[in-house]
Amino acid sequence: MKALIYNGPRNVTVTDVPDPRIEHPKDALVRITTTNICGSDLHMYEGRTDMEAGRVLGHEPLGEVVEVGSAVERVRVGDLVCMPFNVACGFCKNCERGLTNYCVIANPDPDIAGGAYGFADMGPWQGAQAEFLRVPWADFNCLRLPPDAREKENDYVMVADIFPTGYHSTVMAGVRPGDSVVVYGGGPVGQMAAYSAILRSAATVMVVDRHPDRLTLAEKIGAIPIDDSKASPVEQVLDQTGGEGADCGCECVGYQAHDPEGHEHIDLTLNNLVKSVRIAGRMGVVGDFVPQDPGAADDLSRKGEAVFDYGLFWSKGQQMGTGQCPVKRYNRKLRDLIHAGKAQPSFVVSHQLPLNEAPAAYKHFDAREPGWTKVVLKP
Amino acid sequence: MKALIYNGPRNVTVTDVPDPRIEHPKDALVRITTTNICGSDLHMYEGRTDMEAGRVLGHEPLGEVVEVGSAVERVRVGDLVCMPFNVACGFCKNCERGLTNYCVIANPDPDIAGGAYGFADMGPWQGAQAEFLRVPWADFNCLRLPPDAREKENDYVMVADIFPTGYHSTVMAGVRPGDSVVVYGGGPVGQMAAYSAILRSAATVMVVDRHPDRLTLAEKIGAIPIDDSKASPVEQVLDQTGGEGADCGCECVGYQAHDPEGHEHIDLTLNNLVKSVRIAGRMGVVGDFVPQDPGAADDLSRKGEAVFDYGLFWSKGQQMGTGQCPVKRYNRKLRDLIHAGKAQPSFVVSHQLPLNEAPAAYKHFDAREPGWTKVVLKP
Amino acid sequence: MKALIYNGPRNVTVTDVPDPRIEHPKDALVRITTTNICGSDLHMYEGRTDMEAGRVLGHEPLGEVVEVGSAVERVRVGDLVCMPFNVACGFCKNCERGLTNYCVIANPDPDIAGGAYGFADMGPWQGAQAEFLRVPWADFNCLRLPPDAREKENDYVMVADIFPTGYHSTVMAGVRPGDSVVVYGGGPVGQMAAYSAILRSAATVMVVDRHPDRLTLAEKIGAIPIDDSKASPVEQVLDQTGGEGADCGCECVGYQAHDPEGHEHIDLTLNNLVKSVRIAGRMGVVGDFVPQDPGAADDLSRKGEAVFDYGLFWSKGQQMGTGQCPVKRYNRKLRDLIHAGKAQPSFVVSHQLPLNEAPAAYKHFDAREPGWTKVVLKP
Amino acid sequence: MKALIYNGPRNVTVTDVPDPRIEHPKDALVRITTTNICGSDLHMYEGRTDMEAGRVLGHEPLGEVVEVGSAVERVRVGDLVCMPFNVACGFCKNCERGLTNYCVIANPDPDIAGGAYGFADMGPWQGAQAEFLRVPWADFNCLRLPPDAREKENDYVMVADIFPTGYHSTVMAGVRPGDSVVVYGGGPVGQMAAYSAILRSAATVMVVDRHPDRLTLAEKIGAIPIDDSKASPVEQVLDQTGGEGADCGCECVGYQAHDPEGHEHIDLTLNNLVKSVRIAGRMGVVGDFVPQDPGAADDLSRKGEAVFDYGLFWSKGQQMGTGQCPVKRYNRKLRDLIHAGKAQPSFVVSHQLPLNEAPAAYKHFDAREPGWTKVVLKP
Repeated sequence: MKALIYNGPRNVTVTDVPDPRIEHPKDALVRITTTNICGSDLHMYEGRTDMEAGRVLGHEPLGEVVEVGSAVERVRVGDLVCMPFNVACGFCKNCERGLTNYCVIANPDPDIAGGAYGFADMGPWQGAQAEFLRVPWADFNCLRLPPDAREKENDYVMVADIFPTGYHSTVMAGVRPGDSVVVYGGGPVGQMAAYSAILRSAATVMVVDRHPDRLTLAEKIGAIPIDDSKASPVEQVLDQTGGEGADCGCECVGYQAHDPEGHEHIDLTLNNLVKSVRIAGRMGVVGDFVPQDPGAADDLSRKGEAVFDYGLFWSKGQQMGTGQCPVKRYNRKLRDLIHAGKAQPSFVVSHQLPLNEAPAAYKHFDAREPGWTKVVLKP
Repeated sequence: MKALIYNGPRNVTVTDVPDPRIEHPKDALVRITTTNICGSDLHMYEGRTDMEAGRVLGHEPLGEVVEVGSAVERVRVGDLVCMPFNVACGFCKNCERGLTNYCVIANPDPDIAGGAYGFADMGPWQGAQAEFLRVPWADFNCLRLPPDAREKENDYVMVADIFPTGYHSTVMAGVRPGDSVVVYGGGPVGQMAAYSAILRSAATVMVVDRHPDRLTLAEKIGAIPIDDSKASPVEQVLDQTGGEGADCGCECVGYQAHDPEGHEHIDLTLNNLVKSVRIAGRMGVVGDFVPQDPGAADDLSRKGEAVFDYGLFWSKGQQMGTGQCPVKRYNRKLRDLIHAGKAQPSFVVSHQLPLNEAPAAYKHFDAREPGWTKVVLKP
Repeated sequence: MKALIYNGPRNVTVTDVPDPRIEHPKDALVRITTTNICGSDLHMYEGRTDMEAGRVLGHEPLGEVVEVGSAVERVRVGDLVCMPFNVACGFCKNCERGLTNYCVIANPDPDIAGGAYGFADMGPWQGAQAEFLRVPWADFNCLRLPPDAREKENDYVMVADIFPTGYHSTVMAGVRPGDSVVVYGGGPVGQMAAYSAILRSAATVMVVDRHPDRLTLAEKIGAIPIDDSKASPVEQVLDQTGGEGADCGCECVGYQAHDPEGHEHIDLTLNNLVKSVRIAGRMGVVGDFVPQDPGAADDLSRKGEAVFDYGLFWSKGQQMGTGQCPVKRYNRKLRDLIHAGKAQPSFVVSHQLPLNEAPAAYKHFDAREPGWTKVVLKP
Repeated sequence: MKALIYNGPRNVTVTDVPDPRIEHPKDALVRITTTNICGSDLHMYEGRTDMEAGRVLGHEPLGEVVEVGSAVERVRVGDLVCMPFNVACGFCKNCERGLTNYCVIANPDPDIAGGAYGFADMGPWQGAQAEFLRVPWADFNCLRLPPDAREKENDYVMVADIFPTGYHSTVMAGVRPGDSVVVYGGGPVGQMAAYSAILRSAATVMVVDRHPDRLTLAEKIGAIPIDDSKASPVEQVLDQTGGEGADCGCECVGYQAHDPEGHEHIDLTLNNLVKSVRIAGRMGVVGDFVPQDPGAADDLSRKGEAVFDYGLFWSKGQQMGTGQCPVKRYNRKLRDLIHAGKAQPSFVVSHQLPLNEAPAAYKHFDAREPGWTKVVLKP
């Protein structure tokens, strides 16, 4: 089959590789019909991780089941399914508590929990930017889609990662109807966070970014765009909230946050969050942070350490939740919202391309070229 | 009346001052029968705050109502009452949500929320280490005590601050029956956190400190003492938890954390917490941190900034809650536990002294002299 | 002043009565500019309660503060304010937990908790269908409205009762984005429950009623109308939910539920709820039920007893929450939603009338005449 | 192997039956070393269900894994394991939300959800009162026990059903430290509810029963015994709680509740609960109720209908949760409590017998003979 292979920093190609096959009686094979390129793929693309050369990238899979192992009981050949980016067994001590983002079985490394398709350090699983995908623990990992799915694949595919991830940040931030919410980052996840806050009836949603296309997109869904290249985002948020700060804060940027001059600061969005969220406010941080970052510019960042305005954080009595999203906690209900016509997360899609154009798409997306918000691939 | 007056750094005296009086129809006057010296009094005592000379210290009051204002409806002369250290109006937007720790009326400074008796930057309220105390919004702030209170004043007085504060850390840390809990700090609040975790049926409670008397006290209530002067506390906690880390973490030290060699590190306990708490674990930080600390040794600490191991915190998907305790959220039920004989927080008391011995007690307590765990004053 | 007086069963008049005045230093006087007739006013109007003749009815007040008592600290003359129908002190053991619906101070009857304006058995408070209203504990009870309030009084007045009450049913029913929700009752509270479920991003909202105008109104806001005079509502709900039943159920009818033939059955909606809600589903019951109902048709109903399908309820593992709404838990955020233009609950208003037309309005409303959904009065 | 077989009403025998075997690659076979007789076994024993003759009874299994299917990944031969009475697949829409009590795969009946070992209407699974047990979905259903388990089997076996079931009632009742709790029923589950409330630091726990041995046992663990044959239990609870009623209520009796004169009333404990729990109090009902009960004495009870004091329930604003316990939600942490020496639920055991004495034990237990509280079998 054809698949997008990581060969080394900023070098990916669509290559012929052996078809995946059923390796365990609980596996299913899925023919991928829609899959995405994710912002976190860029960490690997840029060589900021220890991704092995030769692996298939991609962790946002949607497709049709073409074969199931002998112990698969629920999923059937012909089902249209969408899989969480998390690979999870369903029965370990973390999975049983709903922490499918920290499955201890899906990751053979004893020091790391959590599996994912086509991801550095997250288990041996091949990626989804390919014609076929092996899905382990298929009964647990496959979310079946309703009959209308064929027409809405670009909506449903967002349920694999970015829609639940953005949603998760609003849950950790405790968004309730009537709240004010600030979202740092107007990329795909930030758009989904803002969209989720709107679905949860926030009174005011603000999206901080500086790329005009992202700010425009945020405004289109009903958020207030905050351009941090024009003025302090903290001041702008305080202005919008009567000087108090937002009730809730969502971080959707991560450790590669850049200032308007283009320099990377691991702590940029965190400290802005603390300042722009109100007393006793809550924050959900879903932007990626890493414990080691050998490619970082300074000593602290290389160790994943941030100069954090802790005294202010504490004296404001704020709360913070972090980490990757346990997609299974949300994907069924988000699917139902799409099915009912109450959510159309595909608004974030800027490009729909065949698989063989994926290498070019990586290049444009990595360069944050205007208009390259979210790329959907059709293998 | 006699009261303990702050005259300047490490200089307090018991002095005659004018009696407090009813200044507003909602006030009550309370004759203090039991009150405590708190670890946070030491921040002021040491001159690390901008406490005004001439003010009465003390924020853990228990006593008898001797006069009530004309608009007081519930509290009556003769009631034995205990007051939260938080001074709160009961009707502002924060109080109505239960955030009595951030009352916007009790603090006239528009940039700071939250009032307290005898506390720097927390409103004009005089302190409780005195013969009498003026209690504003008396119907809201006075917790009435049951008839047995006279015999258990040393238990009930802990409900003013340290028992709910320790308890709050376990609530923010999400302690449930069967959990493992690590508490950083074996001072009075840390002891109360450990005690609360035990009351909440934690399976394992570990207290990290290095003072033998504190470690012994922790062991006496059923916690596992972890001596951080002997070996890495992180390693010891990992050993006790099968390498996974504790389910829950409580920080009860604050920005003046010292290493075993006696140097102060604002980030010491925070980074140890992150390392000794499990994946997806929760933490409650009730040790004091401040946004500005002019007396600190280094630049970052002076700005309240900590070098925080954020990459690890995020990759473990941990959650953290912070801030002073909203005592009213807990004081009624903790009172009921004492009344039912199910809690005896007075185990923490090491010294019971008359008011005029308070200056000497401050000196011993500030020097962390062995055995000076908690001082109760009887004005 | 002029006020709507209850003289006896189905006999109300607009009469001159003495102006209310400040009776306690915490009181405020409010000139009522908008107020509503509520479905629960009809229990009193019909003589089904022991309402005293001569009292002013009405418990949904909005207006301008014209005088404040000497101990009022926050509310000022000139403020435009909306009051919860619950009268609450703010400092009793129930209020401090947020149970303003069960204030033990606002109701002098030792056997009943909870106060309300112009309501049988809920304290001595006069009603709001009048030119002026005395508001006790004004700092606690007055919700201040923003500058745009004058233009949106018909929206904001819904925050006094029916919007939070409907919303409360969705909270007790645990409505989350993506859920299916069935609402029994398409009256004003039922419309608000459906509207709240939609604001909370339910995937499917069904409203059960049989009055065409109510069903049409529900459809207009995006709900699915279920006409229980055409077919079993249970069957219709099961059909809409793939045979499983709704995730969440809201009861907005109460003890005077009628079957399509016009007979009253205290248990009608309850048992339909149990059957039309899914396994492990949750329900919020805000329709009024009473422990004694001397005017009921049968023995059980007179004692407030229902023949409840308990075996089915239990075997489905359902949960049920009940009771009047503690309006203060929600009114600030619902106000903010209106202010942000994200909610317009005035869609439910069918008639806007001067106070002197209130007696006629009661007559039409009590007769459930087509189109008389909700009456707003302008004293 | 030998197993306890249900032959018909009040007729059980220990009989030789074929050994169970691996029927699916996810199965495990367990050699039962400890198992219990449960109060709910008596519903079947008495012929009040449609249990098929010839089936093995018993649903509280603990033992050693002796064989695993080819797709089992975590559980190993030699593991000492305890299984929830719920049989659950781990991947259906209910299991993934933690509702293992309503697994839709483990019960082939399309109208009923939820599986159990040896239980009427709950799937085809054989019972645990036998030498061997087939455990389906073994990786999901087996809880592994620590090395000390051999010495504490009588404690750990309680984690299969009655300890989590009693605990679940306290969770649904919202028990928090300092609360007052009333438990209706002093049988094994009621004792576990009281014990759980005590572990959760309730200030006051009351157990209502009339059997002296049960009341004595409750008193021994620190609860207040309430003898309902001596005086109204409602009055006694009100007396213990200053007239207010308990904060929380646990129902551990079910539809076969008897009055002191020995007559069965489906609604007896429910209506007593409503009257003895406070305003806004919560209740957890884990006693069994059934939608059809052909053997009941009256028409309503035959349909599972109760004359419920709904008007009082509603006017007190109470909440009620119901249903069988999803054991997996609690069993890991309760195991950890036992392992840490913080819980010894075996205090409830009155008899420890070999399997061949089970028929006699059923007889004594069914007759509620004094002292037959809980029977542990050692096959």
